[in-house]
Amino acid sequence: MPILPTFADVLAAAERIRPFVQRTPVFTSGTLDELAGRHLVFKCELFQKTGSFKYRGATNAVQKLDSETAARGVITHSSGNHGQALALAARTRGIPATIVMPVNAASVKMAAIAGYGATIVESGPSLADREAKVAELQAQSGANYVPPFDHPDVIAGQGTAALELLQDTENVNALIVPIGGGGLISGFSLAAKGLNPACRIFGAEPTGASAAAQSIAAGERVTLAGTKSIADGLLANYVGLLTWPIIEANVERVFTVSEEQIVRAMRLIWERMKLVIEPSAAVGVAVALSDEFRALPGLNTVGIVLCGGNVSLDKLYWAS
Amino acid sequence: MPILPTFADVLAAAERIRPFVQRTPVFTSGTLDELAGRHLVFKCELFQKTGSFKYRGATNAVQKLDSETAARGVITHSSGNHGQALALAARTRGIPATIVMPVNAASVKMAAIAGYGATIVESGPSLADREAKVAELQAQSGANYVPPFDHPDVIAGQGTAALELLQDTENVNALIVPIGGGGLISGFSLAAKGLNPACRIFGAEPTGASAAAQSIAAGERVTLAGTKSIADGLLANYVGLLTWPIIEANVERVFTVSEEQIVRAMRLIWERMKLVIEPSAAVGVAVALSDEFRALPGLNTVGIVLCGGNVSLDKLYWAS
Repeated sequence: MPILPTFADVLAAAERIRPFVQRTPVFTSGTLDELAGRHLVFKCELFQKTGSFKYRGATNAVQKLDSETAARGVITHSSGNHGQALALAARTRGIPATIVMPVNAASVKMAAIAGYGATIVESGPSLADREAKVAELQAQSGANYVPPFDHPDVIAGQGTAALELLQDTENVNALIVPIGGGGLISGFSLAAKGLNPACRIFGAEPTGASAAAQSIAAGERVTLAGTKSIADGLLANYVGLLTWPIIEANVERVFTVSEEQIVRAMRLIWERMKLVIEPSAAVGVAVALSDEFRALPGLNTVGIVLCGGNVSLDKLYWAS
Repeated sequence: MPILPTFADVLAAAERIRPFVQRTPVFTSGTLDELAGRHLVFKCELFQKTGSFKYRGATNAVQKLDSETAARGVITHSSGNHGQALALAARTRGIPATIVMPVNAASVKMAAIAGYGATIVESGPSLADREAKVAELQAQSGANYVPPFDHPDVIAGQGTAALELLQDTENVNALIVPIGGGGLISGFSLAAKGLNPACRIFGAEPTGASAAAQSIAAGERVTLAGTKSIADGLLANYVGLLTWPIIEANVERVFTVSEEQIVRAMRLIWERMKLVIEPSAAVGVAVALSDEFRALPGLNTVGIVLCGGNVSLDKLYWAS
């Protein structure tokens, strides 16, 4: 039975990572409030270092290592934000990082990770390929594996964004958090319930990658045969072994939204709030604007995490 | 001889408009610092109400009117940010606004202005057409004309953004400010020189709309036969009668940048800082990144105003 992280771990993580992370601002928008039918506050993790909240969890995991262990370096597999986050967290600690990336990873993401000084090792495209390559390299180097979401230190680190959000705002009694593997919402629910047990936690998933919603419906962890969404940060086939019990205990409901709703919400945030958010961040906004969520009674101010801003600017999702 | 606004007017404007405007944040970026070869601080007026700094000047002009005068309403001509700004400033004061717009104005901008409750009157496309229509309507209604830049209260209002920038940062000893008609840089130079006479003021213009650069070279106000740039907020054929003497006295040099430099700077700010800035705001960034500016000695921290974020998201300037 794995040991689950707690509220105390989130508080400890906040102390640990404070010198390294941005305390990101909280924004509001009268236009969005009108459209959502209630007051919304947006935690702007798109402004976090490396462009996403992932830097919090990676930094917490890296900084928590004792010196001897840290010297062996860190390793993970990632085609996206977690790889960038771990690469910079390792560089900041002055230890080596190895990022296993599938051969079909976007070259711009490889360049970003290489720019942070990490070693990139290519693997086959499947998750099994990637995990096998990590295990092989880890056996050689003794590097510490820092997984993208299913790790107590990663979860606790992600929760620090919720601490800040709730410290910097008033009257927030509900949060909407996007779910991929569940690291972000696990950290957010530990932080929020720790500060205020009455705070309500809602998940947000694309219809095409709804492992959490389906797991809650089934009452057990469900593994999806496949996932498909422009919200590439949320394409997990399952929620984690650690994140699942936290989600099951704390998340009131997971809402799913269509690709069209995600694109519309993304454009709205770019146009009206002038924020370049990635599709994964738009998923939470789309939930807030949905008829189902608007109809929920008893919510005052709702907190939404704009989890990242790493999106290709070669084209626009809403342009043909 | 018109009476020029002073530092005291900027201070008074700051008091007057404080309840109505956003105190916008100041952002920094390690990536941009590396590219510019020095520390940059960005005043984020793209987050100002109506999406640009224009709301400051419009609010100052509107709030300064005595009740009896204000009741006659305000009028201006604009195809862009000033129209939106005056419309919302008037609505906030509870007085009518009339915005004369050329028949070829973008429908999205007309919709925004109408959304703020202003009356839109169409005119012919030329500046002469627009001014004639304003004069005609003003004669009927007695409405107060609030021009886009050449007005002491407008200039003083724009300067309040510089006060905030210099209050919220340290070691800024130079500013780069985009120039259209010169309202923003006039206000900025009054504020900055008032706080620190040694602060150096640099202008930024597109090569295709360089009335200020040419006027400084000629030693007198120059009127351009035409202007052409994607930086649509800076397409002025001349600097103002009020802004010119302020520019001449305070601006050390005006740098011009190509369309290609503007597009490149704009994409960079979207990608790395996650900020949706409009082309006019990218002009100042492009100057900071230029070889000429990088070669200037004696500058510590340079302040740049990201003056607005109102840009069509139907297409990307850098995509074919």
